[in-house]
Amino acid sequence: MTLLVALTWDPKPWVERFRKVLPDRDIVVLGEGFDKSRVEYVATWGPKPGSLSGLPSLRALFSLGAGVDHLMSYPDLPDVPIVRVAQDDLTHRMSEYVVMHCLMHLRDQHRFDEDQRAKRWQPDRAPPIAGDVRVGIMGFGVLGQDAARKLKVMGFDVAGWSRTAKNVEGFEIYSGEDGLSAFLARTDILVSLIPLTPDTSGILSRSLFQKLAHDGRLGGPVLINAGRGKLQVETDILACLDDGTLKAATLDVFEVEPLPQDSPLWTHPRVTISPHNAATSEPEATARYIADQIRRHEAGEALENIVDRARGY
Amino acid sequence: MTLLVALTWDPKPWVERFRKVLPDRDIVVLGEGFDKSRVEYVATWGPKPGSLSGLPSLRALFSLGAGVDHLMSYPDLPDVPIVRVAQDDLTHRMSEYVVMHCLMHLRDQHRFDEDQRAKRWQPDRAPPIAGDVRVGIMGFGVLGQDAARKLKVMGFDVAGWSRTAKNVEGFEIYSGEDGLSAFLARTDILVSLIPLTPDTSGILSRSLFQKLAHDGRLGGPVLINAGRGKLQVETDILACLDDGTLKAATLDVFEVEPLPQDSPLWTHPRVTISPHNAATSEPEATARYIADQIRRHEAGEALENIVDRARGY
Repeated sequence: MTLLVALTWDPKPWVERFRKVLPDRDIVVLGEGFDKSRVEYVATWGPKPGSLSGLPSLRALFSLGAGVDHLMSYPDLPDVPIVRVAQDDLTHRMSEYVVMHCLMHLRDQHRFDEDQRAKRWQPDRAPPIAGDVRVGIMGFGVLGQDAARKLKVMGFDVAGWSRTAKNVEGFEIYSGEDGLSAFLARTDILVSLIPLTPDTSGILSRSLFQKLAHDGRLGGPVLINAGRGKLQVETDILACLDDGTLKAATLDVFEVEPLPQDSPLWTHPRVTISPHNAATSEPEATARYIADQIRRHEAGEALENIVDRARGY
Repeated sequence: MTLLVALTWDPKPWVERFRKVLPDRDIVVLGEGFDKSRVEYVATWGPKPGSLSGLPSLRALFSLGAGVDHLMSYPDLPDVPIVRVAQDDLTHRMSEYVVMHCLMHLRDQHRFDEDQRAKRWQPDRAPPIAGDVRVGIMGFGVLGQDAARKLKVMGFDVAGWSRTAKNVEGFEIYSGEDGLSAFLARTDILVSLIPLTPDTSGILSRSLFQKLAHDGRLGGPVLINAGRGKLQVETDILACLDDGTLKAATLDVFEVEPLPQDSPLWTHPRVTISPHNAATSEPEATARYIADQIRRHEAGEALENIVDRARGY
């Protein structure tokens, strides 16, 4: 069997990784000569339109990341199962990011960083503790649930929102359009981990921010977006920060990436930027994950973490 | 009965708090006229020498904080039980501080803050995850155990060190002088939560830093001191940061507080300063804690969290 590596970036390191974990298979690269009829699996990220056509033996597509929106908008997507990478590694990194940034907002860490730069000694007496602050996780899948569990151990008051009704012990989970307003009304820190679909594109906008809790202990609601950049309307975020609808924002993802040099987000005093690295997958672990799935699939077992094309993730 | 409030700072807010939680008692203040023979309890922080003498009915002293080193060095300390404030509130705040700063070191947050200021988009691929990093909690009492438990949930590889042998399920705890070297040798991030005693004064010095792990995933050992400033030798910290013995330091406490304006710690690029507010106690909760203990004590029950004078905490 042949595994085709189809990437927007330099495929060489990935080819080497796959050769290590699948030493007995052909690993080929898009753009180089290979026998299309033998390709049974594709490992891909953002391939050019047309590049996945004409593969008659294709059995499955593996997306090299948790999000699959790069594939969902792809014309002539082959009609085979699409598998999302869901690794503990990536899940844990995302939780580290979410917990760290929730704690930084809770403790007003950026103010203390500024105080240090100005050599100001200004202890606060009795800031809020985590139990005083309501975190709302929007998107309550594998990533959202792991982050929620860890935030709860830290003492935060955590609830979730999911597109469809869900039961996860220990958490109140709001769902659907109806549940969204009630979820936002009890949320001081909104953590966005939802997938990008036509329904969620631009959902992080003024009309949503206005529904967040404005009576919380942090002095205003906070947005943390570690999902996808196109979920957010950046002009709304900036305007809402300036008129008090939002207190602060931590953004790992952006409408355009890398974030353009002239974006006012870079320098806004209440915006924290990270370069879309909240949860990078460790390439070796990703390669092993895909190799394991291929071996299981060839042995007649089911693939895991298959994307539901109707809902788009 | 009378409760005497003996503080180095303005006692008025504390007098009001105690009057609220103990409305049927006399609350008096050092320096104002009161009947010394009626004082049964004292709530205190760093009182002047001599100010706690001549109280014939004294039954207990309450320290308004977790540390009692301010009393241990006090001449003519009355021979009554000394009670340390041990509140969930303070414990949780300390864990929030410790977990946040461990995550900030894990994720190199200060580098990304700098990148933001310079408008640099530099994602790292596959930084270490918490499981790759060994945190060592020095001081495994109430605070240390709570922080350890939460760090473990975040995925860190956590061990503890305690002066005396201890068993806490789920953790390897090193103890005594003999265990210290082995503990340090497996530690990437050292979290100091030990009490200040004549034995521990200046313990955070070059000879200790040299024993920390230098083969870890962070590129060098990190010190987090949220205990007492006099545990640390600041000239050693600075020299060790500059010669690579330490990679970074996060300090909440200092030899002299407030940290003097001319201290090089303020501006060192790998030092994070907080103004001794890692875990402030909420005054209302502290007052309630002391009132509860007084009521229990008067009802014939034992006081909790009594200081062992021989060991000094």
